[in-house]
Amino acid sequence: MNAPKAKPPKAPVLTPQGDDFPQWYQDILAKAELAESGLVRGTMVIRPYGFAIWERMQAEMDARIKSAGVANAYFPLFIPESFLAREAEHVEGFSPELAVVTHGGGKELEEPVVVRPTSEMVINHYFARWIQSHRDLPLLVNQWANVVRWELRPRVFLRTTEFLWQEGHTAHATEADARVFALGILHDVYADFMRQVLAIPVYVGAKTRKERFAGATFTYCLEGMMGDGKALQLGTSHELGQNFARAFDTTFLDENGERQLVWTTSWGTSTRMVGGLIMAHGDDAGLVVPPSIAPHQVVVLLVKDDPDAAAAARRIVDELRALGVRALLDDKVSSSFGRRATDWELKGVPVRVEVGPRDLADGVVTVVRRDDASKAAVAVGEVAARIPALLTATQQAIFDRALSRREARTVDVTSVADALEAAQHGFVRAPWAAIGEAGEAELNKAAVSVRCLVRADGGVPESQDEPDLVAVIARSY
Amino acid sequence: MNAPKAKPPKAPVLTPQGDDFPQWYQDILAKAELAESGLVRGTMVIRPYGFAIWERMQAEMDARIKSAGVANAYFPLFIPESFLAREAEHVEGFSPELAVVTHGGGKELEEPVVVRPTSEMVINHYFARWIQSHRDLPLLVNQWANVVRWELRPRVFLRTTEFLWQEGHTAHATEADARVFALGILHDVYADFMRQVLAIPVYVGAKTRKERFAGATFTYCLEGMMGDGKALQLGTSHELGQNFARAFDTTFLDENGERQLVWTTSWGTSTRMVGGLIMAHGDDAGLVVPPSIAPHQVVVLLVKDDPDAAAAARRIVDELRALGVRALLDDKVSSSFGRRATDWELKGVPVRVEVGPRDLADGVVTVVRRDDASKAAVAVGEVAARIPALLTATQQAIFDRALSRREARTVDVTSVADALEAAQHGFVRAPWAAIGEAGEAELNKAAVSVRCLVRADGGVPESQDEPDLVAVIARSY
Repeated sequence: MNAPKAKPPKAPVLTPQGDDFPQWYQDILAKAELAESGLVRGTMVIRPYGFAIWERMQAEMDARIKSAGVANAYFPLFIPESFLAREAEHVEGFSPELAVVTHGGGKELEEPVVVRPTSEMVINHYFARWIQSHRDLPLLVNQWANVVRWELRPRVFLRTTEFLWQEGHTAHATEADARVFALGILHDVYADFMRQVLAIPVYVGAKTRKERFAGATFTYCLEGMMGDGKALQLGTSHELGQNFARAFDTTFLDENGERQLVWTTSWGTSTRMVGGLIMAHGDDAGLVVPPSIAPHQVVVLLVKDDPDAAAAARRIVDELRALGVRALLDDKVSSSFGRRATDWELKGVPVRVEVGPRDLADGVVTVVRRDDASKAAVAVGEVAARIPALLTATQQAIFDRALSRREARTVDVTSVADALEAAQHGFVRAPWAAIGEAGEAELNKAAVSVRCLVRADGGVPESQDEPDLVAVIARSY
Repeated sequence: MNAPKAKPPKAPVLTPQGDDFPQWYQDILAKAELAESGLVRGTMVIRPYGFAIWERMQAEMDARIKSAGVANAYFPLFIPESFLAREAEHVEGFSPELAVVTHGGGKELEEPVVVRPTSEMVINHYFARWIQSHRDLPLLVNQWANVVRWELRPRVFLRTTEFLWQEGHTAHATEADARVFALGILHDVYADFMRQVLAIPVYVGAKTRKERFAGATFTYCLEGMMGDGKALQLGTSHELGQNFARAFDTTFLDENGERQLVWTTSWGTSTRMVGGLIMAHGDDAGLVVPPSIAPHQVVVLLVKDDPDAAAAARRIVDELRALGVRALLDDKVSSSFGRRATDWELKGVPVRVEVGPRDLADGVVTVVRRDDASKAAVAVGEVAARIPALLTATQQAIFDRALSRREARTVDVTSVADALEAAQHGFVRAPWAAIGEAGEAELNKAAVSVRCLVRADGGVPESQDEPDLVAVIARSY
């Protein structure tokens, strides 16, 4: 592949990232037709192209969840208000964010119902009905659903009053079983998906006590670096201990015939990952979508109206599809070629194959990679066969670029003051012993937070009190 | 296959259909672990086995919807209350069923928001933003979502306050385009899915003026016969004319540069289809799930703890999976064989392969079909290869049985009085001219309704005023 040729300057389609990253994000949502705000403040409309990306995320994630032995189910949107109060920390955490239905079927309700902000309460109620014996354990369920958390500073995909997610809920006979499962989801489902599919080099670690989920005894998390050096939490997995089991009296008869409380976990990822994908890989020309998640991995562009070129373009699309590549034909020659090329660049399609009569006269087509803008002339008869390897290379290159940026924008410090300063530019690694809960509170005052704790060797701790932990510190979304 | 042998009488697992069909339905929901009631009246919990059936329905339906050129998207759960009032018939139709959120984030809202009962309003608002020119048409979107309609007489799957569905919404340049599309969904997506996948021989026709969707100019529908002779509406497809386009000023510039209102359609199917599947095919032994929709097409049962039998059972499962058959191994020999066999019968798994040491000594396994209870001894080395054809035969037999029952329970009459009488036992066909709107009102008083109008040749009418239409009349869910 050759380096890109110098192009004449043109008016940018998007606000450049360096000028105003938040505005770049807003521009790309609109210009790439990903999503827009809903009518009720804080809600969002996910447009077909944005939703196609989410659908691919769902398919990849769902397959991994099922491989972990978890079955999908569905629990109701509405929860009686009194139910939420069963687990004290949980209700305290969620009360300020609730949407409350007071009228139904034309009448005021006797008891208001809340729209689920998460489903621990309702699912644990059913767990208590379904679990009798140790033979019923582990009980492993997941649901794909919408949840509502009233949001004062909404941002599409990142922080919305309604969002789409998967929430897994499991019950186990022992604390050790619950921990092994929560860690399995963390590593084998979430980290694997984020690295292999989203091409985001996530930090995998544990939350500090302060950052834990309301009602959890321990929270694991995955944090990615965005294009502006801020962190985005991409997923969490919680050990809930016996907190919900106690609240719902979820017990089982063990092998010795004794009644025991179960140990539960919950874990979730959401449409927020679409925002993460945009901000982790996008550049001034638009989205950069990794091939594994791209709705269209290749777009074959007919340069101009020409019967031979049209036939060649269709043939290439057919050949690609036969190879299992998600290929799209763009033969809308009533729009200019330049405009269509810019649009596919904006939408981040990994590879463009440009088919025009002039190239064809030489027996070639032009293949353009989105991630590095490199172009190559490839023999028309060989192009389809070369694409799969090109997609694999692109997937790896996108991950490598994100990893390089993360490493370049991460510094090691040993004091709270230095952490505060360095976090203005990217990630900070500091000994947790040098930060501590007092230092964490100080960072929080300046809108900087401990994103996760990791062991010195990169491993995931089982307690925030282990020696020699490293705190990963950053500003965040 | 041999006819089933006479078995000794045993206590029924379910209330027999003939004794009390509604109680049989409740029993099967619980015993087959399909679903149960939610905490808020009218809501439901869909348990993993019930949800696995719904997931297969979604996958099959979604593929057909995409083949029709429709893209998925997502629109918000919440709609400003004032929005609903934009289309007069629509608001009148839905007002009594709304759930209203009055508080969010700890405060009373300035304007209450309703939880979507359907999304015509919000989607047409965005259509008005996205459609400028005839080049933007047709605009074809679908969403998979939950909706809420407050339900006074809830029944799990059939009529619930919250249900899951797909709702398609499209905009077209002309009335003819909209009609062709609404009919395409009716025939190529819905009827094809219901007949080929659900194995339900649906009547495909048009609703009378009285039964139309609120805001529609014409409603097409699909009606199936349940095991008790009642009708269940399994899907609808609506022409909305320019009603919503007028309410939201959704216009486009046509080829001549003149501004025109678009023509819209909407169409939906829901978790109600799971109830339909249960009631269309189930019998006194439990569910009968057609192979096309079965989460497990074949269960391979290890009869008792025996290493050779266990190895043979595992090998058969592997061979079946290699053939693309959804096969499950049941080697839980700590439960009795009889109990496990009854349970898989209850769950309606199309084919059981029973692998035990006594049969294996003769080189055979026992293959049992769920739909007709026929059993056959099959050579262990041949069994996997014979299953695909057996599944195809089972799928067809389930459809044929449903069709025979429908034909046996349908009578032709020529008066309202005879229709009323005959509808107590099944479906009734009567000349629409002999019923008319006055007759329809009389039927309604006795909880009998015109389910659909069809042409004499079985075709779908374009108006209820066509001559020689046949009214299909029944009691319904």
